[in-house]
Amino acid sequence: MICGKLPDVELIPSSRIRRSPYYEATIAAGCTAWTVYNKMLMPLSFGDLQAEYDRLVNGVAMWDVAGERQVQLQGPDAHACAQYLSSRDLSKMGEGQGYYVAMCDHDGRLLNDPVLLKLSGNRYWFSIADSDMLLWVKAVATEKGFDVAVSEPDVSPLAIQGPKAEDLVAQLFGEEIRSLRYFWFTETFLDGIPIVVCRSGWSKQGGFELFLQDGSRGVELWNRVAAAGEKFGIGPGAPNHVERIESGLLSYGGDNTPDSNPYETMMGRYVKPNIEADFIGKAALAKVAAAGPERQMVGLFIHDDTTEAWPLPQRAPIWQGDCQVGTLSAVVWSHRLQKKIGLGQVLSTVIESGEPVEAEGPDGRSNATTTGLPFI
Amino acid sequence: MICGKLPDVELIPSSRIRRSPYYEATIAAGCTAWTVYNKMLMPLSFGDLQAEYDRLVNGVAMWDVAGERQVQLQGPDAHACAQYLSSRDLSKMGEGQGYYVAMCDHDGRLLNDPVLLKLSGNRYWFSIADSDMLLWVKAVATEKGFDVAVSEPDVSPLAIQGPKAEDLVAQLFGEEIRSLRYFWFTETFLDGIPIVVCRSGWSKQGGFELFLQDGSRGVELWNRVAAAGEKFGIGPGAPNHVERIESGLLSYGGDNTPDSNPYETMMGRYVKPNIEADFIGKAALAKVAAAGPERQMVGLFIHDDTTEAWPLPQRAPIWQGDCQVGTLSAVVWSHRLQKKIGLGQVLSTVIESGEPVEAEGPDGRSNATTTGLPFI
Repeated sequence: MICGKLPDVELIPSSRIRRSPYYEATIAAGCTAWTVYNKMLMPLSFGDLQAEYDRLVNGVAMWDVAGERQVQLQGPDAHACAQYLSSRDLSKMGEGQGYYVAMCDHDGRLLNDPVLLKLSGNRYWFSIADSDMLLWVKAVATEKGFDVAVSEPDVSPLAIQGPKAEDLVAQLFGEEIRSLRYFWFTETFLDGIPIVVCRSGWSKQGGFELFLQDGSRGVELWNRVAAAGEKFGIGPGAPNHVERIESGLLSYGGDNTPDSNPYETMMGRYVKPNIEADFIGKAALAKVAAAGPERQMVGLFIHDDTTEAWPLPQRAPIWQGDCQVGTLSAVVWSHRLQKKIGLGQVLSTVIESGEPVEAEGPDGRSNATTTGLPFI
Repeated sequence: MICGKLPDVELIPSSRIRRSPYYEATIAAGCTAWTVYNKMLMPLSFGDLQAEYDRLVNGVAMWDVAGERQVQLQGPDAHACAQYLSSRDLSKMGEGQGYYVAMCDHDGRLLNDPVLLKLSGNRYWFSIADSDMLLWVKAVATEKGFDVAVSEPDVSPLAIQGPKAEDLVAQLFGEEIRSLRYFWFTETFLDGIPIVVCRSGWSKQGGFELFLQDGSRGVELWNRVAAAGEKFGIGPGAPNHVERIESGLLSYGGDNTPDSNPYETMMGRYVKPNIEADFIGKAALAKVAAAGPERQMVGLFIHDDTTEAWPLPQRAPIWQGDCQVGTLSAVVWSHRLQKKIGLGQVLSTVIESGEPVEAEGPDGRSNATTTGLPFI
């Protein structure tokens, strides 16, 4: 079990917590466990985590990731506003292209790590992780005086992930979809259902996200994909806790402390404080770039004797003797590596020294060594 | 059961979803069901909803409402910034006073309905409902150029609610606490634990909220209150679904549609578009005030034959014939009224006509009549 020794948490449904357009389909497919993501129920398991992992790594899986909401900018200043909100250089971004961007506050702290999609010169979507950027973007756009409408459109991604994802998507949308480059997308239809197809997804197994643009047709899309995927052995799944750690993918809000800057969350390569355009946090990020980040995300090899994942409902300390040198956000057993691995945010000086650390688990401390990411 | 025929929803714990400082104490007290509120687990039941209701209405209950986070403004422009963010007149607010305020976007749509606490002329807390106002307030304060620091301080409310709450709080903090007026507060200590004691809480049974200012001492505070409350028959509870409907208290994000203005959520009396000070949404709200709101929150008497609450995981339609005239957010059985009652947002013209409506429940439509709020 992912959640190890944690008590079951029974959630009482509420109209404050939204249902995805795929909700009924995921119930029918046997969803057994959930999280709440951007105030929407998001499936986390269908009862067999090992089979879900195997489908993702060897075959193809479909995930309801509608909780990945879009914040849309539309209007004459959409580009200028997107740039002001993103710490990356957007000047060369193509129509039909996506960029992984860090959105920061004025002190350079990471607020979200969305994929930004450029639908046209005056229409952009921030495809967001779990923090309510609609509020942030609305406030910034209006107070800064950008001529742009900010909204959450009726768009709900369905992810198709795994080495057989391309064959399935080609069968659904035609062979030309194979030429889509990573993070590029195209607007199309499937049986009349309006969809943006993007080569993206929160795994490193390859795949696509279908951005459904009509929430009333979620179950129909789910069933259509499930039927076409049958011959590829498709099955339901969810963002995979083990695979994403092996692949070193950031879970915003889970891995990082709230005061982290993007250099401390593996996003340094995407931050460009030297560009001409102004963006929020630019001066603060220039300082971090010059001095180097105090902390960095690292992989950890955990030296304990079991093959069970650690239950980590909150970030735990990483120690050197009496000194806390970082925070630990996840520990799992990797079947592919035959090792127990984890993710943490650790002081740069400690990483550079290469000295061993101790990771605090449910049964006390375990020796651990830091390593680069991804693991695989 | 509150959740009627809904399937259990098992939530997988995650470091994205925070634990309250009272978490261990609520587990020890037998918490059985939760919600996620401002990305924090919040208890909703301890296994006996009827006993929890009875304690609230006839005795005293203690609730972990740490999910009600604070957004702090501190600095020379704290007052000006709080006013710009609030659609109420703050000019006569006293130090030590709280106001129920509507925070709106620039189009006058409600973003949150916090209690605003004035700790001093340059320090305010928005004690927020379930939407991430930290992002909104940070963006507005910085882009508008207010000289103010915006933060989420280490503050976690514990509510003590019910007719015996005052006796208990007087025993804990001294007799003078009885003179606190509604929504006024005082900064004090309990066994050295720093606490703001406010006469407030999300029920109409009377009570206080203890704003714990040191998260490391949550379990200690919980246990101290539980011990002192023993002679009053205290027990654990949570914001009560039945009592809050009887009392007509808004659940932000649950009762209202995302496009509601405060006149449509029972907050009209607190909105002052005619004051001199500028605030966000002022012009839009002046228009609504002049024209009258299109919709309003109402109570509903539901005419069906059972005494079971309706499971309403999403807002359901309210009909007149083929025409949808509103949304229904809650239906429960009121023991005190011996009636089935609900909350909805209905077209003003329909309310004024007094004509009956039909509420869509899990087994089809039921006849219903609108009525004023609160019920009791």
